[in-house]
Amino acid sequence: MSTNDAIAMSTVTTGAVWGSTKRHESVPGFPGMATPVRRVNLSNGEHFDLYDTSGPYTDESAEIDLDAGLAKTRDRWIRPAPIDGAATQLVWARAGLVTPEMAYEAAREGLPVELVRDEVARGRAVIPANHRHPESEPMIIGKAFAVKINANIGNSAVTSSVGEEVEKMVWAARWGADTLMDLSTGKDIHLTREWVLRNSPIPVGTVPIYQALEKVNGDPTALTWELYRDTVIEQCEQGVDYMTVHAGVLLRYVPLTAKRVTGIVSRGGSIMAAWCLAHHKESFLYTHFVELCEILRRYDVTFSLGDGLRPGSIADANDEAQFAELRTLGELTKVAKSYGVQVMIEGPGHVPMHKIVENVRLEEELCEEAPFYTLGPLATDIAPAYDHITSAIGAAIIAQAGTAMLCYVTPKEHLGLPNRDDVKTGVITYKIAAHAADLAKQHPRAQQRDDALSLARFEFRWNDQFALSLDPDTARSFHDETLPAEPAKTAHFCSMCGPKFCSMRISADVRAYAEENGLTSAAAIESGMAEKSAEFTRLGNSVYLPLRAL
Amino acid sequence: MSTNDAIAMSTVTTGAVWGSTKRHESVPGFPGMATPVRRVNLSNGEHFDLYDTSGPYTDESAEIDLDAGLAKTRDRWIRPAPIDGAATQLVWARAGLVTPEMAYEAAREGLPVELVRDEVARGRAVIPANHRHPESEPMIIGKAFAVKINANIGNSAVTSSVGEEVEKMVWAARWGADTLMDLSTGKDIHLTREWVLRNSPIPVGTVPIYQALEKVNGDPTALTWELYRDTVIEQCEQGVDYMTVHAGVLLRYVPLTAKRVTGIVSRGGSIMAAWCLAHHKESFLYTHFVELCEILRRYDVTFSLGDGLRPGSIADANDEAQFAELRTLGELTKVAKSYGVQVMIEGPGHVPMHKIVENVRLEEELCEEAPFYTLGPLATDIAPAYDHITSAIGAAIIAQAGTAMLCYVTPKEHLGLPNRDDVKTGVITYKIAAHAADLAKQHPRAQQRDDALSLARFEFRWNDQFALSLDPDTARSFHDETLPAEPAKTAHFCSMCGPKFCSMRISADVRAYAEENGLTSAAAIESGMAEKSAEFTRLGNSVYLPLRAL
Repeated sequence: MSTNDAIAMSTVTTGAVWGSTKRHESVPGFPGMATPVRRVNLSNGEHFDLYDTSGPYTDESAEIDLDAGLAKTRDRWIRPAPIDGAATQLVWARAGLVTPEMAYEAAREGLPVELVRDEVARGRAVIPANHRHPESEPMIIGKAFAVKINANIGNSAVTSSVGEEVEKMVWAARWGADTLMDLSTGKDIHLTREWVLRNSPIPVGTVPIYQALEKVNGDPTALTWELYRDTVIEQCEQGVDYMTVHAGVLLRYVPLTAKRVTGIVSRGGSIMAAWCLAHHKESFLYTHFVELCEILRRYDVTFSLGDGLRPGSIADANDEAQFAELRTLGELTKVAKSYGVQVMIEGPGHVPMHKIVENVRLEEELCEEAPFYTLGPLATDIAPAYDHITSAIGAAIIAQAGTAMLCYVTPKEHLGLPNRDDVKTGVITYKIAAHAADLAKQHPRAQQRDDALSLARFEFRWNDQFALSLDPDTARSFHDETLPAEPAKTAHFCSMCGPKFCSMRISADVRAYAEENGLTSAAAIESGMAEKSAEFTRLGNSVYLPLRAL
Repeated sequence: MSTNDAIAMSTVTTGAVWGSTKRHESVPGFPGMATPVRRVNLSNGEHFDLYDTSGPYTDESAEIDLDAGLAKTRDRWIRPAPIDGAATQLVWARAGLVTPEMAYEAAREGLPVELVRDEVARGRAVIPANHRHPESEPMIIGKAFAVKINANIGNSAVTSSVGEEVEKMVWAARWGADTLMDLSTGKDIHLTREWVLRNSPIPVGTVPIYQALEKVNGDPTALTWELYRDTVIEQCEQGVDYMTVHAGVLLRYVPLTAKRVTGIVSRGGSIMAAWCLAHHKESFLYTHFVELCEILRRYDVTFSLGDGLRPGSIADANDEAQFAELRTLGELTKVAKSYGVQVMIEGPGHVPMHKIVENVRLEEELCEEAPFYTLGPLATDIAPAYDHITSAIGAAIIAQAGTAMLCYVTPKEHLGLPNRDDVKTGVITYKIAAHAADLAKQHPRAQQRDDALSLARFEFRWNDQFALSLDPDTARSFHDETLPAEPAKTAHFCSMCGPKFCSMRISADVRAYAEENGLTSAAAIESGMAEKSAEFTRLGNSVYLPLRAL
C-alpha cells in the first residue's frame, strides 16, 4: 500500500471510548489467543466488561500504523488441514473439528464451543473469515448467537475519498459494527478496499458486481461472466470475507416487478435485471453459480445471497417477485453448502410490521435456516431523514423473530451518501435494535448490561451510567447541557425533574425508610404500624436528603 | 392574561410547513364546522391532503395573537343537554347522541360517525374536551382510530421559562403531536398552563399532584386531600382536558417495589408512596376517588389513570407491583365510568419486546378496553441519549397490539429537560411509531401516504417526496448537503449511489423497455423474444437516459 496525497489518513479516530479501558481475555486451550473487552471501572469499585469490536484503535497501548495495516493475527493460528480440498469453517465443523475461529467466538460470546461448531456445521451460523484477511477478528453470525449488525460504507461517484472511508470503517467499528460492507461505486474502488481490508478489525463484505460494472463504465448490458468472475477472484485474493451475489434475480422474475410502486430497488438486482432483459438470457450469476462456489471455497469466502427483488416500499412488501427470488435463493443455498461454502441470505427492505415475521418463517423454511441478514426493514416509507428509526423498528422485530444480522440504515437513506456522523447514528441505532432483540431472545449475557446501567441510574452514579451506555459521549453531553458542573455527576436529580421531583430520589428515600422500619412486606404494612408513620414524620417530615450544593 | 418581561412570546413559530398549504374541509350536517388538512400540491398536478394538528399557526392567512389566545371555536358548537346532571361525551354517546366533537373526529379520520359514538359509548375511546377549553380541536383516542401521540412539555426548577414552553407547545403541534401534557414542576406553574391552554389547538393534560406538591414546597408528606382537590378544581376551571391521577398506588403495593432494580420511577407514584408510608394511610387519591369523579364530570375532564408503579428498567418489567396496580386501575375504571367520566389507562415504561403484548392483553381484560396510553415502552435501558429510539421500538409494537395513544420520549430522557429540538425529534419519532402501527393495523387511510411518497421517490419527484414526509425541512437539507443545486431536485439519482448506480433509475428504464416490448409477463418472456433483446441493445446499448447537467 502507498499513501497518496488524496488520502488523509491522519483523520482516523484512536483512543479509548470514554469511561472504559481496553483489555484482552485469553482463550483457554489456545495459547496466544485473546478476545477483546472494553472494561468499565465503576465508581462503586466494581467493573463491567463490555463486548467490543473496535479493534486496536481503542487500545491506548496500541500503535496504529495505517500504512502497515493491522497485525495479521489469524495467520499465527493453526488451521485444520483441508478436507477433500476444501478449507472452510463449514467443512471443518461438519468433520467435528473446532477451528481457532470457533474457539474465539465461543469465548467472546460466553457460549459452549460445541454450540458454535454445531451451528456452523448445520449451516445455521457462519464465520466469514477469508484466509487472506488475517487482520480481522472472527465474527459468528447465526440466530443462536448475539444479533450482529453491519455498517455500509463506501464512496459514490458524487462524493467521498479513500481517507474518509477508512475513517468511517474505524468509526463504525468503534461504536459497535460487527461487520462492514464496502459498497464503493465511485473511483478508486480497489484501492479503497485495500486500505479498508488491511486496517479492518471486523469482517468485510462487498458486492462484486459494483466493481465489475465500473470496469464496463456503468453499462450493465456490457457485463460478462468472465469479467465478473475475474472481479470476484481479485476480491477473494484481496481478503474480502463475504460477498453479496444477486444470483436469484432470474429473467422470468423481472416481469413480476412491473406492477410494483417502486420496481427494483436493489442496485445489484436492477443491474442484473437490465442484463437479463437486454440479452434475453438467464443471469450469468445463476448459470455459473457452481463455478462461483468453487472460487469462494478456495478462500473460505461466505456467500451473502442478495435479495435483488426486495421490496422498496410498503406497497411492494411480501409480493410474488420477492418470494419467487427467495425460493431460488433456497435452491442456491443447497448448492453452495454442497460445495462446502458458507451461506447467508439477505432480506428486505420495506415491510409493514404485520408482514415481517412471515419473511423469517419463509426464509428458514426455504433456505435451511441459513443466517438471515436483513436491511431494516423499514416499517414505513413516510419519514426520509429518519429511516434509521423507521428501520430500527422493523429490525428489532425481525431480529426477535430470528434474523442473525441486521444491515444498518442511516438517516441519509434515500437522500444522500452517509457521512461519518450518519455512520455513528446508524451503528448506535442498530446496536439498540440488536440488543433489544437479544433481550427478547434472552441471550444469556444481554440483560446484564441493562441491569448494570439501570442500577447506576437508580444510584445516581451518572458517570457509570454514561460509561455503560452505547454512546457515552452523547449521553454525557446531553446531561451537561443544563448541569455541566462536576458535582452534578453525583447529584440525586437532573434537569428533567429538578431536585424536588426526582422520582428515583424519592423512591430511594422511601425504600431506605421502609427497610429500616421493617415495612418491606404487605403483611408488615397490614399489621398496623401506625407508630412507624409518626416516626417517619418525626425523622424529618420530608423524604428528601439535604440538597447538595451544585 | 398579561405578558410580563420574562415571557418572550415573539418566539413562537408560524408559517406553513414546507411544501404544503393549510385548508379546511367543512363537515356535512354541522354548519360552520371544518376540519383542518395540510394540502401538498404535487409537481405532477395532483394533490395529497395530510392529517394536521398544527392549529392556525401553520395557516398563512391566520392572525396569531397570543395575548388573546386562539378562537374559542367549540363554544359556538351546540352541545346536547346534560343527562342526569352529567354533560360528558361518554353519557351522550351512551344515550345515542352524536356530539359536534364526535362528528368532527369522524370527518377528520374518515370513519363513520356511528363508529365514533359507539366506541365512546363503550369506553373504548375517549374525546378529552373540557368545556372550559373551547380553543382546542377535538381528538379521539381509541384503538379503532389512528394511533395518537402525546408530547410532554413543562419547565423544571432547574431550567426553562413560560415563553419557551409556549413555543414548545406550538412546535409540538406543528410536527404532529395529537395531545400535549404540561408537566411543569418549576415556577409559574399556573401561569405557564394558562398561556399554554389559551393557545393550544390540541387537548392538554396535566398531573395535578405536581402543582399540589409545589404548593407545599415539595414535601409530599404535607399533601392533603383538600389541597389536592382544590388544585384539581383550579385546573378543571382553567380548561385542562385530561388529568393523570395515580390513584392505584396503594399502601400495600409499596413493599412490592422493594426488590426492584429501579424502585418507583413515576414522579406521581413516588410522591404518593412517600405520602402513604409517612402517614401509614391509604392514598387519598383512592379513598376520595368518587369525589374526584364528581368534579371531573362537571367539566368533562378525562381521567388518565396513572401507572405510578410502572417499571423503570428491563429488570422490573411486568412484575407484581406493576400488575397489582393495574388491577386497581381496572376497579377504578368501572367507578369512573359509572359516574359518566371518560377514562384512559397509562402504561409502561421499560419493557423488553417479548413482554410487551402481555401488557395490552391484561390492560384490556382488567380495564374494559379503556384506551391504553403508554410511555414508550423502552425496549432496552442501555442507550441514554437515544431513548426516543429505544422507546419507539416498544411504542410501535405496543400500538400494533392495541395501544391508543403513545406518550413520546425525547433524546433527553433520563438526562435532562428536553429543549425545542428534542421536542421535535420526539414528536417525529413517535409519529413514525404510531404510523407504523396504523399500517400494521391497516387503518383505512394509513398506507395512502406511504404509497404517495414512494411513488414520488420512484419518479424522482424530490420536492414531492420531501413535502409528503414527516419532516420536509430535514429531508430536504439532508439531500442538499451533497447536491444543493436546484436541477438535482429532478435528477434521476442522489449522492448515495450516484448517477450510474441508482437502482430506481435502472429499474424505471427496465420497466419502460419491458412495457414497450410486451415483456410484461413470464409467459411473454418464455415465448422466446430473442429479437427484443437485440432491439434493446440497438436502442442505446445502455439503460441510462442522458445525464442531466447539474
